Amino acid sequence: MRTPFTDLVGVVHPLAGFNRSPAVVVAVSRAGALGVLGATMYTPEQLDAQLTWIEDQLGGRPYGVDLLVPAPTLTGERVQPLESEPSKVPPAHRAFVEDVLDRFGIPPLGDDVVLDRTGRIDLSLETNTDAATVNELLEVVFAHRSALVASALGTPPLEMIDRARRAGVPVAALVGTAEHARRQLAAGVDLLVAQGTEGGGHTGTVATMVLTPEVVELAGSVPVLAAGGIATGRQMAAALALGAAGAWTGSVWLSSFEDPASPVIKDKLISARSTDTTISRTRTGKPARQLRSAWLDEWGRPGAPSPLPMPWQSVLVREAWERIDVAAEAGDERARELESFFVGQVVGTFKGLRPAGEIVHDMVAECEHRLNELARLARPGGP
Amino acid sequence: MRTPFTDLVGVVHPLAGFNRSPAVVVAVSRAGALGVLGATMYTPEQLDAQLTWIEDQLGGRPYGVDLLVPAPTLTGERVQPLESEPSKVPPAHRAFVEDVLDRFGIPPLGDDVVLDRTGRIDLSLETNTDAATVNELLEVVFAHRSALVASALGTPPLEMIDRARRAGVPVAALVGTAEHARRQLAAGVDLLVAQGTEGGGHTGTVATMVLTPEVVELAGSVPVLAAGGIATGRQMAAALALGAAGAWTGSVWLSSFEDPASPVIKDKLISARSTDTTISRTRTGKPARQLRSAWLDEWGRPGAPSPLPMPWQSVLVREAWERIDVAAEAGDERARELESFFVGQVVGTFKGLRPAGEIVHDMVAECEHRLNELARLARPGGP
Repeated sequence: MRTPFTDLVGVVHPLAGFNRSPAVVVAVSRAGALGVLGATMYTPEQLDAQLTWIEDQLGGRPYGVDLLVPAPTLTGERVQPLESEPSKVPPAHRAFVEDVLDRFGIPPLGDDVVLDRTGRIDLSLETNTDAATVNELLEVVFAHRSALVASALGTPPLEMIDRARRAGVPVAALVGTAEHARRQLAAGVDLLVAQGTEGGGHTGTVATMVLTPEVVELAGSVPVLAAGGIATGRQMAAALALGAAGAWTGSVWLSSFEDPASPVIKDKLISARSTDTTISRTRTGKPARQLRSAWLDEWGRPGAPSPLPMPWQSVLVREAWERIDVAAEAGDERARELESFFVGQVVGTFKGLRPAGEIVHDMVAECEHRLNELARLARPGGP
Repeated sequence: MRTPFTDLVGVVHPLAGFNRSPAVVVAVSRAGALGVLGATMYTPEQLDAQLTWIEDQLGGRPYGVDLLVPAPTLTGERVQPLESEPSKVPPAHRAFVEDVLDRFGIPPLGDDVVLDRTGRIDLSLETNTDAATVNELLEVVFAHRSALVASALGTPPLEMIDRARRAGVPVAALVGTAEHARRQLAAGVDLLVAQGTEGGGHTGTVATMVLTPEVVELAGSVPVLAAGGIATGRQMAAALALGAAGAWTGSVWLSSFEDPASPVIKDKLISARSTDTTISRTRTGKPARQLRSAWLDEWGRPGAPSPLPMPWQSVLVREAWERIDVAAEAGDERARELESFFVGQVVGTFKGLRPAGEIVHDMVAECEHRLNELARLARPGGP
């Protein structure tokens, strides 16, 4: 299936797979789609090592990198690392979080716990959205041979587009409304990812069925990927029917063996239904779709504080999540109740873990099969 | 395009168009799709007259009827018309509504206002969900030659299915979750309409991209229509790609000349964006997607009461909406601010009013065109 997206990045299948794990990225790209590394959690040195490893594994096949690049970062509006700013976390918020953890009996972190920075998802990634670090990360990306650099958040990163253009790397931007798409097009992006509300992580309110054709119409000759609600070949075929040049997927890779989420989280995801996600600001300060859990229930009770704006909500809850993760992985049942994860409504279709490469093959084969069935439907006389 | 749906009801195109106006139903059915009359607002005598008129216009072409049939109605749990029950509307709720109308300066209804029962949408339709009236309406439907009877609300209406089967009329049920679909299948419905959260009116939380394939997989040989987010041929093609046997549409007909909504409402709809709808319980007591307006803002303010359960919220707000409608139609600017309507996120794509028959032709032509484009995409070597 050749589309403007496959031409742009040089892949065989019109499919991008976003994940924070280099292992998933490699498996997706090896299978002929575009693996995209969620790279904001890494230090520049770590990212350099990971991209080197990915390139060693891929032997020339294309892959992409996704960074959270808020506009102020690149315009120098906030150049200090967050650690050097005075905290904007009110004591009442800290007390609320401590009270939840106390009532659920979540133990403090032991001295022996060494947190693996790359092993846990953290959409907030506060330390890596300061200008200095993001610029260093971008330098690392452009020193490698990424086929795409994507920005998941914020208004057009003009400086990033200029630097990417000089490096010959196409720039993608995730958008949740027609208005966002207009701004990104004006900034000169090479690819738009229209993410519907059913998707996991930071998301808007408009569904993929409505958002995709809206963005496609605005985008003119700029290719658009549909995102949100896509985990199977039928959904990929629907994305193409809506006018997209392919599908951008995230949640489905959580059901791969290669994804590094803990067994507790994977178990919760596999048993979840499509009605078991909700959009909440309680993890990052911005609306993000995630699995319902006791944690979200606590924030919904009368008297609970309102989540803080990004990045302060992440600063507030970061250690709490580390404690919950560690306790849940150690078998603590109450911690398991609190445990959650960023995931879209497709979580209801997860039936078990599969190799990431098999997920690519199954999606592409089902999509091609469905497109051929649809062709018979369109022929006079019926199927 | 022949599908199990076109076979079931005998139409040319795999498309159903729901509207409360017989004129839209006739135009849709004449164009080869299935016009479906939202019939719950009518008295049995009115419905009899309307179905007679529709059949005169259609000369044998198929059409359908949609009723709100809550299960208790058919099992006799509530056999009294609502008027005979003691009101469950608290005085504080009445005072809140009066205060909103006062502050917006909405005049009371004049003695000269004769409300046209069929001219206004009222999803609540409280007087016609009592058992006696619904049973009379069903008798009227079965005395005519409707090709489909649909139930938009509630658990399986077993008695309705039995009576429909005796009358030889297929029964459709609207569902918003996989669990609802399981119950309706167990009750023996002939067609499922999987309505995604992006749709207008009463709706759930799962998007069409996710809900449709979920319901299709459960339904086995029972055909499924996709609903929610479908107003163009590309979206219709996406519905087919997801495995649906066709599309069920509602909102798009509000952009037809034949739809009887007031010019004020149509004007608000045509200028709305896809982000301008929201789900609220403030009109019927159940979550229903509608256009954002000052009315919804008022119910969202601190101190506003919680909406009452169905049917009491409708009892509470019915006269308020009549006053708002009358004042808005008379040119009152504050009434226009309050004015709203049940509509899905596709409202953002309305560019102007068109004849309903033209909407059918455009959707079907674009869908067929898109399916042929997709066929070229699936062919080895690309498009």
